[in-house]
Formats: sequence, structure tokens, C-alpha cells
Amino acid sequence: MRKRIGERTLLFRSEPRVRSAAAIVAKNEGEGAYRGMFDTVLDDDKCGEDSFEKAECKMFQTAARLACEKAGIGIGQVHAMLAGDLLNQLITANFSARELGVPYLGLYGACSTMAESLLLGGVLCDGGYCSPVLCCASSHFSTAERQYRFPLEMGTTAPPTAQRTVTGAGALLLSTQPMPIPVFSHVALTAATIGRVVDLGVTDMNNMGAAMAPACCDTILAHLRDTGSRVEEFDLIVSGDLGTFGSEMLLSLSSQNDLNLIDRYLDCGASIYLEEQGFSCGGSGAGCSAVVLAAELLDRIERGDVQRMLFLATGALMSPTTGQQGESIPGIAHAVVLERRD
Amino acid sequence: MRKRIGERTLLFRSEPRVRSAAAIVAKNEGEGAYRGMFDTVLDDDKCGEDSFEKAECKMFQTAARLACEKAGIGIGQVHAMLAGDLLNQLITANFSARELGVPYLGLYGACSTMAESLLLGGVLCDGGYCSPVLCCASSHFSTAERQYRFPLEMGTTAPPTAQRTVTGAGALLLSTQPMPIPVFSHVALTAATIGRVVDLGVTDMNNMGAAMAPACCDTILAHLRDTGSRVEEFDLIVSGDLGTFGSEMLLSLSSQNDLNLIDRYLDCGASIYLEEQGFSCGGSGAGCSAVVLAAELLDRIERGDVQRMLFLATGALMSPTTGQQGESIPGIAHAVVLERRD
Repeated sequence: MRKRIGERTLLFRSEPRVRSAAAIVAKNEGEGAYRGMFDTVLDDDKCGEDSFEKAECKMFQTAARLACEKAGIGIGQVHAMLAGDLLNQLITANFSARELGVPYLGLYGACSTMAESLLLGGVLCDGGYCSPVLCCASSHFSTAERQYRFPLEMGTTAPPTAQRTVTGAGALLLSTQPMPIPVFSHVALTAATIGRVVDLGVTDMNNMGAAMAPACCDTILAHLRDTGSRVEEFDLIVSGDLGTFGSEMLLSLSSQNDLNLIDRYLDCGASIYLEEQGFSCGGSGAGCSAVVLAAELLDRIERGDVQRMLFLATGALMSPTTGQQGESIPGIAHAVVLERRD
Repeated sequence: MRKRIGERTLLFRSEPRVRSAAAIVAKNEGEGAYRGMFDTVLDDDKCGEDSFEKAECKMFQTAARLACEKAGIGIGQVHAMLAGDLLNQLITANFSARELGVPYLGLYGACSTMAESLLLGGVLCDGGYCSPVLCCASSHFSTAERQYRFPLEMGTTAPPTAQRTVTGAGALLLSTQPMPIPVFSHVALTAATIGRVVDLGVTDMNNMGAAMAPACCDTILAHLRDTGSRVEEFDLIVSGDLGTFGSEMLLSLSSQNDLNLIDRYLDCGASIYLEEQGFSCGGSGAGCSAVVLAAELLDRIERGDVQRMLFLATGALMSPTTGQQGESIPGIAHAVVLERRD
């Protein structure tokens, strides 16, 4: 049985299941479009810690432990954790892995992390190497802002194309065998497509959607070509955090390639906040697609509302250093297929 | 057939082979203990570029392409590249992946990257998902120094425990099927042990060996326990870049655990420079173990000098941000077993 088709697509024939998930967010996200769906909404986005980095670690660890608890296992029963975040040296994932004590593989895919971890988690489970595995991603507005842009204390205003980094951590527990508590029973991971780095020359660090949309389109096209599928075979095609401008650009690039995504398309970033919240271009960050997937999208598959979803997390591989050296922002998108199974 | 034994060890029953490898280094490394073994020794560690970051990218890409060329394939035939480096946002691996155009999975494990990429590359090959895969890691003295410590222009002197970041890129081509040109025919990847983050509280950024040694010992113990092996079953146990102090600490920690490594132990960092070069504590960096493996260790297996090697790449997950916040330096070590097969 072939486990790879076309150029970049892997098939998970044993169809490992997402068994449980946890999503923790801050106030803005908790009051947004997915209100009431998150496990925890933080009152204090510093989580009682003395730095935002420590707060992000605490949020990450809590999500990781909660995903395990919900499924009725301890964190010590996890065979491997695949995780990443936006911070230099993966501060959040690395320091969380220290506290959690699990076998750990650190990934860097910027905002594409959630799909990268599910892709590699799928390979570890389906290949019979590790099960259960924990796939996690997080981001925090206040850690990202000062690392990538300006210290919060400067009080700079956001330009009109800027998305807001989501403060949130998402964790998914993936396994081939059932868990003691069946939180989800029907959410199967059936395939994945590995991303390529695509760069059309966008240099504006405040317009990451535009930097990522070409990579997203490239991976959708690769997936359809590799599997011989049509867009109509998916109930939902989800991108991570293209935001409003990036989403428009993806729809336009797709239609140039004769794909009509519009009836089945959702961008986690563009949909996470309500219009009246004033974050006009939407959310971004590795945590953005992670918490929307964990809090809402998996449920839609579980209850049969969505039968088949192509989930793409999109990463702008931007770096302040290369930006200062005049480089453009490379983008990448990894995709996984999540399907309802009885 | 079980593909996982004990707590953290994965078995690669199909025994994918390392088919070729390439190692590029700068002058200091080229004049060190492995003189004459590298594919290219750079005259100019800026590679004719206008920044050290761009130079590191060029070095990385050249190594990646060369590993493919040697085996008689084009870079376009690679099913996946698993790679990382030390720079924020994985500048080197990400921008190189853009130029190479291959399906790409970015990893962050600091100096443990070479083993992490071989571990996941082994899973992808052995599981039947991707073959060939390219596993790469790099580091550059001048990019690392200014990111982690001080700008070179300050002319600071190194404290006595400081290791020198190796300027080098290593690439290994791994596959289940033979390649057109058989550079190596006998180097099999048979198992891997996933690391855990271990932190004994070291806070000195100039003594990374001490921060990594406990994690290295932890992974050696886990591997032996998981597989029921004894130290004597390995001809060579290799650590990545513990340096002279870290190596001493590993030997001492091992002997406290009743392991006598000394007759079969090599640290890539402690051995890469000659004493007269004056880098008294040895080399470090993700490129250090990558180039020693690619330039020398694989050859020793190929020619039968070494039958069985436990290769551990060790990462100090240090971050200037967390350092300033008073955090200690977590360490991690992933291990792979490389064995001679006829």
C-alpha cells in the first residue's frame, strides 16, 4: 500500500484519530467569534507570572496537560510531543517541554506549526512508532509584538494591514488506539501535504497575509494534484492566519488557477475576532489556527457538520534580521486532511 | 513487529541507509583535527556575500546540493528536507529551503538538530512515507556570536569555558532504495531515541557543555534501558558538542550511573580543533556534529573501522531573552544508532 502519492502528499492508512483537544486564549479571543468554545479564557494574560514569556509557557503547559486529562491519561503516557511557537529559540515549547518531562521534538514553522506537528504526529502514529502523540502550538500578543515589532511600552499604532497576534495555546492528542475517555471518536487524520517555501517578494512585515497566501495556494494545488481530488470533495478548506487581505489574495490566486474555494473557505485569522473589536485584518500567530481548530473545527467534524476538511496552517518565515538586510518574507503552508469516520 | 521499545526508542526495521554526505567548513575547522576530510574549506567565511547570514545560507545550500550530486540525483528528487540551524526564525534553513524548492520541514533543536533530523528522517524513510530525505544542520561563528553574545566589532574575549561556534554545514542523504552513485553502501540507520529536556540549573551562557551533559547522559541511559544494550556493544559513542568541560561532566555523570564510556567516547566539539589553535574548550553549534559526522564518522562505518555507533547531538536550548529573565539553560539530546551492514 502506497504511503505517498504525487510529489508531496503522505497517506495515513491507519487513520489515526484526534482523541481530544484543548484551547486556552486571552480575553480578546474569548470575546470574539468563537466565544464560549474555548476551554479557558484568561482574565490576566500574564497568568500571574512576571514576564509574558513565562505566561505563554504556563498557557502552553496548561493546554498540553488538559488535552491529556480530557482523554483520561497523564502527560507521562504521551510517547512524543511535537510542538513549536514564534519565539526565538522556541522559548515556549522548549521550557514547557522541560516542565512536562515528555519525549520532545521541537519544530519551527512559524504560524504553520500546528499543521507541521499534525503532519509529523500523523507519520509517528500511522507508522507505528509513537501513539499517543501531543501536537501543540502557541503564540502570545505581548511576546510576539516585542520580538518582531516594537516594545509594547512604545505604544505604536498598528498599520491598516497588520493582523493581531493571537494569545492562545492549542493542544491535540493524536493516537491509533482509543483513550480511556472518548472526547472525540470520529475525527480521523487521513493525509498530509508537506509545504515548500514560496516567496513572491513581499517585504512588508505588517502584511504577512500577502507573504503567506502564495505558499497556501501552492500547497492546495499540490494536494489536489497529488491526490487527484477536486475542491468540491471538501466541505471546508481552512487556512491558518492569512487575515482579511491574505484571504482575498488566496481566493484571487486560487481563481487564477481555476479553483473556486469561496463556498467552502474559512481563514482562522480572519474569523477569530468580531468586527466591532476593531482588529480589522484579523488574527495571526501559531496559536491562531491551533485554538480555532481545537475549540471549534474538530467539533464540527465530530458532530458530522463537516465530513472532510483540508486544514492548512500558514507560516510567514519572517525575521527581523533578514528584514533589516533587505530580504523579503518567505512563506510556507503545510496541509492535513481531517475526515469524519464512524 | 514492534517499532518502538521502552519509553523513547524507535526501531527502523528496514534499516534505511545513509547514501552520501557533504560537509563544508571554514578555515579554522579545515585546519583542525579533521583536516583534509571536508568537501570544501572556505577561504572566505562570508562566501562573497554582504552578510554572514547570507554566507551561512550559501554554505548550507551548497552542502545540500552536493550531498545529492554525490549520490547522482538532483535536489528536485528529494522527497523531504528536514533541517535547522541556530538562528532566530531558522534563517539559514528557511531561506535555503526557498532556494532549493524542496518539500521542507523546519526543526529547532539548537545543536541537537543533526540527530533530530536523522531521527525524523529515519521515521519518514522506514515508515515508507518519503525516500530519499535530506537531513541538514549548520552554524556559523559570526552569525551565532552576534545573536547570542556580542557583536564581533566589540572585540570581546572568550571566557575560559566558552566553546567556539563551528562555521560549517553538513548534509546527509538518507534512503531506503539505492541511489545512482553508491558513495556509502554500508551505513545503516537502525534506531533512534527521542530526547527529553533536562535542566540542572546551569545559567552560564559561556558553559553550554555543562548545560547539555545531563541531557546527554539521560538519553544514553534511556537508550540502553529501552534496548537492553550495554555500552560495550558500541564501538563508538559520540556526543555533539559538549566540549572539554562538558565531556568531562558527561564521563563523570555516566560513571555515577555505572557506565564506563571512556574507551569508546568521542565528542565532536572537543575533537574538532587542534590544541595549538587555541580554542581550548572546543567547538559547538548545530554544524559541529553535522560536519564531523558527514566528513569522518560515516567513513569509519563504511570502511568497517566502526561497526556500531551511538550518535548523540546535544542542544543547549539557551535564549538571550530567558537568560536575561534569570532562567537557566535547558538541554536536550537526541540519539541515533548507525551500524555497518553488508
